[in-house]
Amino acid sequence: MNAAQKPFGWGDDVRDYIRTIPDFPKPGIQFRDVMPLFGHPRGLRAAVDRLVQPFAGLRIQHVAGLEARGFIIGGACAHQLSAGFLAMRKQGKLPGPRLAQSYALEYGEAVLEVHDDAVEAGEQVLIVDDLLATGGTAEAAVKLIERLGGEVVGAAFVVDLPDLGGRARLERMGVAVHTLCAYAGD
Amino acid sequence: MNAAQKPFGWGDDVRDYIRTIPDFPKPGIQFRDVMPLFGHPRGLRAAVDRLVQPFAGLRIQHVAGLEARGFIIGGACAHQLSAGFLAMRKQGKLPGPRLAQSYALEYGEAVLEVHDDAVEAGEQVLIVDDLLATGGTAEAAVKLIERLGGEVVGAAFVVDLPDLGGRARLERMGVAVHTLCAYAGD
Repeated sequence: MNAAQKPFGWGDDVRDYIRTIPDFPKPGIQFRDVMPLFGHPRGLRAAVDRLVQPFAGLRIQHVAGLEARGFIIGGACAHQLSAGFLAMRKQGKLPGPRLAQSYALEYGEAVLEVHDDAVEAGEQVLIVDDLLATGGTAEAAVKLIERLGGEVVGAAFVVDLPDLGGRARLERMGVAVHTLCAYAGD
Repeated sequence: MNAAQKPFGWGDDVRDYIRTIPDFPKPGIQFRDVMPLFGHPRGLRAAVDRLVQPFAGLRIQHVAGLEARGFIIGGACAHQLSAGFLAMRKQGKLPGPRLAQSYALEYGEAVLEVHDDAVEAGEQVLIVDDLLATGGTAEAAVKLIERLGGEVVGAAFVVDLPDLGGRARLERMGVAVHTLCAYAGD
């Protein structure tokens, strides 16, 4: 498969460029791989256009991307919006003074970090990632941005896995959630 | 420090938005942190414009970004060039069939991977990362792209550490190297 050979139109379904890898990263997981979409010249551009469209006209100062696939699409969305990029990283990766926020995983917990001077009070931030599952990482990102004094104007994801409850979880926090496609019944 | 409060002009030096963190990730290393540059709305845009400028007019199908900071600036450069994004990842992160290329670290070795269907024969690829040090990771990226049948049109980095020899190493491979600033004497 090489999606770059196919034309990509405005009305196309991004799912045509997302492939499913069975049993990754472990047995029983259907991994939704956005790399063919990001690897397609017009696919990447269409994904960026569609992700930021509901937020056009807002004064977004930062696009927060979640490590690591959220760095790809978040960097592109920041560029499209002429916003700065805000890196939400795994523990121990950021060199400067930082805030940390722990969140639950299926087994155990993880920590998300952000530089403590990356957002000024009152600045508007859009969270971007490739995929919304349980929403645990995105919830940690919302908390970090709010601890910095920023305002989360929304969270945009290419893929929604609605059975895992992430959208409902973020909406309960008052976050506007925008997704380009969904895979249910996994 | 919050670079977003400062204006950023075309003639500005990107080093004004790069900060040095001493002794990260280990004692004796002066870490050049590009996050304030990427976090500045006009800083990110200026970095992207300056990185892709020498390659404008070429038919670049893919921008290859090196995990993880290269995903941020690489995603933005791909968007700017209307190219696809090619992820060069650490071992075990890519879900699909892939090629692997090992390279030497100061102590031991590491492996860089790419999806084996991500580039078609003859396609032109621009490598992008935040920083060029010894060039070991970038050399592995060049080898992977060439093993896929792609042509490396160049490698662009925000920061060059010329004392570590990366530029000379890539140029010996015939790769055109473009950097925005340098820190020597570290």
